[in-house]
Amino acid sequence: MDQRAIGVFDSGVGGLTVAQSIIELLPGERIVYFGDTARVPYGSKSKNTIIRFAEENTHFLLSKDVKCIVVACNTATAIALPHLQEMFRIPIIGVVTPGAARAVGTTRNHRIGVIGTMRTVASGAYSQAITGMDPDAVVFARACPLFVPLIEEDWIGHAATRLVVREYLDELVSREIDTLVLGCTHYPLLADVIGACYPDLALVDSAVSTAETVRTILTESGMLAEKAEGERIHIWLSDYSESFHELAGRILHRDIDNVLFTVRLEELVQGMAGKL
Amino acid sequence: MDQRAIGVFDSGVGGLTVAQSIIELLPGERIVYFGDTARVPYGSKSKNTIIRFAEENTHFLLSKDVKCIVVACNTATAIALPHLQEMFRIPIIGVVTPGAARAVGTTRNHRIGVIGTMRTVASGAYSQAITGMDPDAVVFARACPLFVPLIEEDWIGHAATRLVVREYLDELVSREIDTLVLGCTHYPLLADVIGACYPDLALVDSAVSTAETVRTILTESGMLAEKAEGERIHIWLSDYSESFHELAGRILHRDIDNVLFTVRLEELVQGMAGKL
Repeated sequence: MDQRAIGVFDSGVGGLTVAQSIIELLPGERIVYFGDTARVPYGSKSKNTIIRFAEENTHFLLSKDVKCIVVACNTATAIALPHLQEMFRIPIIGVVTPGAARAVGTTRNHRIGVIGTMRTVASGAYSQAITGMDPDAVVFARACPLFVPLIEEDWIGHAATRLVVREYLDELVSREIDTLVLGCTHYPLLADVIGACYPDLALVDSAVSTAETVRTILTESGMLAEKAEGERIHIWLSDYSESFHELAGRILHRDIDNVLFTVRLEELVQGMAGKL
Repeated sequence: MDQRAIGVFDSGVGGLTVAQSIIELLPGERIVYFGDTARVPYGSKSKNTIIRFAEENTHFLLSKDVKCIVVACNTATAIALPHLQEMFRIPIIGVVTPGAARAVGTTRNHRIGVIGTMRTVASGAYSQAITGMDPDAVVFARACPLFVPLIEEDWIGHAATRLVVREYLDELVSREIDTLVLGCTHYPLLADVIGACYPDLALVDSAVSTAETVRTILTESGMLAEKAEGERIHIWLSDYSESFHELAGRILHRDIDNVLFTVRLEELVQGMAGKL
């Protein structure tokens, strides 16, 4: 039994879907969430920079006395997870392996599509994870850099969005994939549009399976908390914006006024963030 | 006469269009360019964060011994220019006033459209600058957050891009504007698409007029350089990426291998960057 909180980080707001899944699945757990909103997005930045940001975010969460870290960002997981797991001694859980496992459990024809940021796709992390679990699987991947801006612009129902979805996915679907991994925490918000274009495609979102992995790891290591006292989540941001506030409230189904804090970038890069 | 370089910064690669205009217009000048590629984009971040980044970028350029600073980023100009001009003692030149002046000199019916990032448009900086010069002017502004991702995805000729252009601009054009300010350094790359949709609209790009403003200020203060020795430009980035490299080469019409450097974010936020 370990009453400390679970640390969760993402480049921005999307990782809150993972935090929310943990809150729902593990009623004893508290979460300290960090969204790196001053430096978002990660998906188009270099490997070295993403590794560095992931390290700083982990240091920051450790300064809040967390018992494990969930990297709730596909790009940071794909690029930096092995490095973080080597560098830090606490359990560090990414979203790629749980998403890959769910895809392998879902597909019937072993043909799986993966979409994500440029950096996630270029890393090949999903392909490796999927073929590691199912050697018969064939993986087709495609970067979809316009999806996040379309979602953030709230154009989900717009004709342009359908055109962009078709442009990105027609070729993947023509390879006869039966399962598509939504390899970016924003993409589940496009699930209805993608589903309308390709009704036979099974869509895989890793938030729930990541929460299940967290439960397994905490249970096996005897670190599951017994009962959450006080607030279930504290949210730290490197930049505050109204749009984060609004979207975060929608994802968490609650008002977040009293649990939202900001951290200055120099504290982050110097690993000197104060205690919560 | 002042042989020191001119400092130019932008959130990313777009400000190189301003640097290139200065290089062409002022053959005696050298430039130290800083692109904040680790924290790009600025246009959706908070005012405080943008001001902070602009300050850090200015400190960094000052550490390279520049004689003036050009803020070649519309968002940073719109949000942080007055603050920078108060804080630092050297001339600091933004892109908004030159762009506004060119728009006022171009319009015939005094109805001017402005497009830019969310933050630029929300600041009202262009409207204020334009109506300050032409009290009869009526300004209609619209944020176009999808333009930069579409340009970076190189979808300039795609049907989705035309749909997005129409969605953003039809309403502005229906207000009978005759002039449109491209209030983001990326947008000139969409000029052909916008021009094809609205052939009667005059498009204003502030790169050339900003270079002219630099010439005026340096001439009047006796700070114009006589002759450039060695490289005309050194480029510093907070994150290196292949895509920057490629696009920068296209904008500057040259190979940039030997003039490209990176700076670590902790040096930037601590204002401790070493000398060039």
